[in-house]
Amino acid sequence: MDFVTGLRCRECGRSYPAEALHVCDFCFGPLEVAYDYERLAAAVSKEAIAAGPASMWRYRPLLPVDDPNPIDLGAGWTPLVRADRLAAELGLRELWIKNDTANPTGSFKDRVVSVALTKARQLGFKVAACASTGNLANSVAAHAARAGMASVVFIPEDLERAKVVTTAVYGGTVVAVRGTYDDVNRLCAELTSERPDWAFVNVNVRTYYAEGSKTLAFEVAEQLGWQAPDHVVVPVASGSQLTKVRKGFAELHQVGLLPEPPAVRVSGAQAAGCSPVAQAFADGTDAIRPVRPQTIAKSLAIGNPADGWYALRAVRETGGALAAVSDEEVLEGIRLLARTEGIFAETAGGVTIASLVRLVQQGVVRPDERVVCFVTGHGLKTVEALTGVVGPTATIAPTLEAFEEAVGAELDADRRTR
Amino acid sequence: MDFVTGLRCRECGRSYPAEALHVCDFCFGPLEVAYDYERLAAAVSKEAIAAGPASMWRYRPLLPVDDPNPIDLGAGWTPLVRADRLAAELGLRELWIKNDTANPTGSFKDRVVSVALTKARQLGFKVAACASTGNLANSVAAHAARAGMASVVFIPEDLERAKVVTTAVYGGTVVAVRGTYDDVNRLCAELTSERPDWAFVNVNVRTYYAEGSKTLAFEVAEQLGWQAPDHVVVPVASGSQLTKVRKGFAELHQVGLLPEPPAVRVSGAQAAGCSPVAQAFADGTDAIRPVRPQTIAKSLAIGNPADGWYALRAVRETGGALAAVSDEEVLEGIRLLARTEGIFAETAGGVTIASLVRLVQQGVVRPDERVVCFVTGHGLKTVEALTGVVGPTATIAPTLEAFEEAVGAELDADRRTR
Ligand SMILES: Cc1ncc(COP(=O)(O)O)c(C=O)c1O
Ligand SMILES: Cc1ncc(COP(=O)(O)O)c(C=O)c1O
Ligand SMILES: [Zn+2]
Ligand SMILES: [Zn+2]
Repeated sequence: MDFVTGLRCRECGRSYPAEALHVCDFCFGPLEVAYDYERLAAAVSKEAIAAGPASMWRYRPLLPVDDPNPIDLGAGWTPLVRADRLAAELGLRELWIKNDTANPTGSFKDRVVSVALTKARQLGFKVAACASTGNLANSVAAHAARAGMASVVFIPEDLERAKVVTTAVYGGTVVAVRGTYDDVNRLCAELTSERPDWAFVNVNVRTYYAEGSKTLAFEVAEQLGWQAPDHVVVPVASGSQLTKVRKGFAELHQVGLLPEPPAVRVSGAQAAGCSPVAQAFADGTDAIRPVRPQTIAKSLAIGNPADGWYALRAVRETGGALAAVSDEEVLEGIRLLARTEGIFAETAGGVTIASLVRLVQQGVVRPDERVVCFVTGHGLKTVEALTGVVGPTATIAPTLEAFEEAVGAELDADRRTR
Repeated sequence: MDFVTGLRCRECGRSYPAEALHVCDFCFGPLEVAYDYERLAAAVSKEAIAAGPASMWRYRPLLPVDDPNPIDLGAGWTPLVRADRLAAELGLRELWIKNDTANPTGSFKDRVVSVALTKARQLGFKVAACASTGNLANSVAAHAARAGMASVVFIPEDLERAKVVTTAVYGGTVVAVRGTYDDVNRLCAELTSERPDWAFVNVNVRTYYAEGSKTLAFEVAEQLGWQAPDHVVVPVASGSQLTKVRKGFAELHQVGLLPEPPAVRVSGAQAAGCSPVAQAFADGTDAIRPVRPQTIAKSLAIGNPADGWYALRAVRETGGALAAVSDEEVLEGIRLLARTEGIFAETAGGVTIASLVRLVQQGVVRPDERVVCFVTGHGLKTVEALTGVVGPTATIAPTLEAFEEAVGAELDADRRTR
């Protein structure tokens, strides 16, 4: 059973069939999936969801593809961790980390890819493709391998080594492009017309792809005992995730899973070296000016964000804010989260934690709010960002004496004075 | 409620209280946790387990520490993935991958550490320590950070860079030792007497630590609809995991969750460059001769395995076998699993898959068996093993022409001929 009624233009509202379409023929606005919420409300229940799989597919009726055997590596249903030690350092009462590093390929992109490729297969596509800042490429290559589909993924040439290896290992085609992500994306937009039989997950099937991010909101609400948080902090690259997190909370009310219309404040996180949306927010303008990215947070390095304007509007409408943090703050954010909560995030996670710190300092995130911070990629993906920053405390010969001399005495002294 | 009746010597059977003991005073045999299975049988049920958390702690009554708030990052309840594409390549009917790369720090060690540190805290320890081939250090540092405990972890100096960074980032003490794991382990055994107030998870609290691996068997049985598989393939370093997987299946029957006594054949996987247990198996001897490891599978590089003899016995008693595979086969194993199932494993996983291939060729693993293969660590941890082995298909300028010239034509030709 499918609850999709079609696609709808986000700008002019025109309707389209649920096919491989992504822009409105009339006004060129982006298309969005439309559902029959009344029928959905009658069909979904907390009990049915709880009895579903321990993955994002427990929310199948709320996703835009009806397939009993989705292309699934186990994305989603990641831990929502109460972060009391971090909260104490920041002066917050109730802070949660949505630990989306715990996805099959180590980032939230597994959610969007699992939806996109399942739909692409249903629509008859045989090749999975994408333009990626790294994580999307990892996930497309992995899910395509799982499904036995061919894959062709495009990445900027200067990506972190781990992200290149963990894309190429699946045996698909990996094209490194001399240029920024925005160059890669432009090339893929052109290729979409040249190769109409390829499913570019974030181009011609983007409408379906984007819906996968709603599951972040669904899971948070379910994990909080079917309640919405007061404030969420979400990283922003293209801006898709942020807008869909907001949509996810709203839909839960529309289908009766949340009793009240949720009033979730949505804040966004960017790296200062690539912060077109945060800049527009700070300037109080609607015009998002493209930038040339220069930051260690390569997964967020989109200088011309497709959904930037929608993300900006979501932040403004909900009373959130956007932060732009320096690369030094990103590294501090990674270490702060690791030290207090035992979670090792990639640079994008460092951006989010550093933005949380900043928003707390600015009084945007308030001490009495129930806050959820989305940590969306694993630290093992961007190990080189920490080279020279963290390392062994000491290197010793394998003897007691060597140990005592190098670290033992100091550790004991430390512990006595604490 | 705690179902532990005490500790028992695996050799002479003498009983001890459930304290921080690990060897028998009388015969120096290793101690094992003893449970009241009758009381357990009355207390556990499939329904209660299903209603528990989506983590290994859903089996709390079967674990040796009773704490309503364990030190928990979300270890366990990882996907059991039906691997039809890999099965087809190997000529197997029913193959499953237990994807334990999907743990918080990316390896199955999170299971044993979550148990060990929770128990250590209960016993009053304030410092978490370990001797590690890499993954254990990652996990101890992370869980200690989460709990606000101090940590001191010991690793061989030559570990993979990602494993050093993802240990040091949590802010504990990391001691790199010039020597092999066996040197590191010897040092830690000495330190255990010097620092009786430190919990060395795999030395003085090893008895509790080891029990965490049982959850691998529990989950597999539950995920198969409360059935045991016919054959499991398990990587072997110290040999602890293999013996505990076997114990886990047996316990499920003892407490009534499996109707029949399970007849699970248990096979072991080692790298040829460090295969003391596989060598003893091949030689038909009981004597495990220590070796000096020389393999890219560093996480399995234990030349003098503490539980090697028990692992060997478990394999023999169940009609399994042990394989020893070359480093080339390890790399092939990693790529085979990635290409067919979309799962990227570390070198230890490559050892396991390559061993599966070998055991199928030898007729040990039979085509009609229901086989489960334990893939226990994430590929992002050993990226350097694949450097020069996989990489981009091509590097191009951001233009259509460059794409067509470098890969486009070839891809189209490829697809036409398929
Ligand atoms: C780890 C991570 N987090 C967040 C994002 C932001 O995603 P979006 O493009 O939907 O804003 C990305 C995008 O690549 C990412 O890789
Ligand atoms: C990824 C991985 N798999 C398997 C093992 C084997 O564990 P055991 O020492 O229990 O045999 C280890 C040990 O470090 C490991 O790191
Ligand atoms: Zn329109
Ligand atoms: Zn004894």
